[in-house]
Amino acid sequence: MGMPNTKLIISYDGTDFFGWQRQKEHRSVQQTMEEILERLSGGERIVCYASGRTDTGVHAVGQVVHFHSKMTMPADKLFLALNGLLPKDIVVKSVERVPDEFHASFTAKRKLYRYVINDARAPDVFLRRYAWHYPYSRLNDVVMNQAAQYLLGEHDFRCFETNWPNRKTSVRTITYINVCRADQLLWVDVEANGFLYNMVRAITGTLVQVGRGYWKPEYVKELVEQGKRAKAGPTAPPEGLFLMRVTY
Amino acid sequence: MGMPNTKLIISYDGTDFFGWQRQKEHRSVQQTMEEILERLSGGERIVCYASGRTDTGVHAVGQVVHFHSKMTMPADKLFLALNGLLPKDIVVKSVERVPDEFHASFTAKRKLYRYVINDARAPDVFLRRYAWHYPYSRLNDVVMNQAAQYLLGEHDFRCFETNWPNRKTSVRTITYINVCRADQLLWVDVEANGFLYNMVRAITGTLVQVGRGYWKPEYVKELVEQGKRAKAGPTAPPEGLFLMRVTY
Repeated sequence: MGMPNTKLIISYDGTDFFGWQRQKEHRSVQQTMEEILERLSGGERIVCYASGRTDTGVHAVGQVVHFHSKMTMPADKLFLALNGLLPKDIVVKSVERVPDEFHASFTAKRKLYRYVINDARAPDVFLRRYAWHYPYSRLNDVVMNQAAQYLLGEHDFRCFETNWPNRKTSVRTITYINVCRADQLLWVDVEANGFLYNMVRAITGTLVQVGRGYWKPEYVKELVEQGKRAKAGPTAPPEGLFLMRVTY
Repeated sequence: MGMPNTKLIISYDGTDFFGWQRQKEHRSVQQTMEEILERLSGGERIVCYASGRTDTGVHAVGQVVHFHSKMTMPADKLFLALNGLLPKDIVVKSVERVPDEFHASFTAKRKLYRYVINDARAPDVFLRRYAWHYPYSRLNDVVMNQAAQYLLGEHDFRCFETNWPNRKTSVRTITYINVCRADQLLWVDVEANGFLYNMVRAITGTLVQVGRGYWKPEYVKELVEQGKRAKAGPTAPPEGLFLMRVTY
């Protein structure tokens, strides 16, 4: 490439986007970012690469993006210019010049996702965009966390893959997983060296079956061993999912 | 009236409403409520009265509404039917049959509002609809609370009234006022027996001037004594304001 490489950490409210990836007819985070960068560069064609795609309705607290450009604007000026021009549902949290080799996706070591569940009986208008409302049963976060620990480490996670079978490998390493409760919110945190399509949402849907008492925690161990998607829980909806952090 | 009287406690995200009050061309909470009640009653014309109007962008955690109707649906069925039909940005929290004399506005004794300020440097996409982002200065909540205490009790609050002079009286009694901080959020809680137009937002705008060090806390005492709106701070924007609770 040769052109300077820039790393951005961005946050977005995924509600009104059709996900990260550019699409012809729909508003995407990628297209929104690229259009504003192109305006700032005076018309240069710029392509943004993210650490991974997020789906429609999925949020980001710390998505990482990189792009190559001839632009010479200092990082602190670019930070202000981007935040001045971006719509209110995207915020740039940092701008940094990085070596040519840096690639938001290929050089990522780990990603941390958080899934938020609200198990209050009554819906909460202020959380409807940011949590899965699950009013059917108060969830037992202690057994959910027990079940979750069976997923720690290196496993073949094909039982949590929506597009099964995966063309390459479905082996991934979960380096951290935790379920905890704060009042009527549950957080399912999962950090791994990579994720299969819809993996966190399938894990969450499965842990919820444990939390409501339908499966015992040990079921999750068998599930991974058997490797059958049909034996896992349903995929949790997108509005509760946040990409929190990417580590390089 | 004679027709049964029903009290509702409702919560709404004010972002996408042009306030409570019905208007010809714009989406209002009142119209949305009335249209759904009319569907449920089979076409009866129903008027909803709220404890007070909220402006465009202002939220409610516990707005109180009443209406008279011939409908005989039990309260628990009406609760489910309303929540089934309402858009996602309005939730009914309770339904109760009340005596004929109950009036959401006239019989209210006190209302509690909360104003939320986010004084983090960087904007937060998930708070943009629910807090006033004030990145210019870290606010001193201790002196803001000192200043706020001068407002406690019965005073002529015309210095905080947008449409000054008030036709009747601008004397109100603040029964509770408190400013506190949790991380980068400040809460300004104000409970009173009644509020002038934009009063909480004008109080907040004034306290922010104290919190950033522009005025001393004692200035607020003089301000009330002088009674001049032009001497108070600017009106804080609507997105940080929540009607929390109405007491009868």
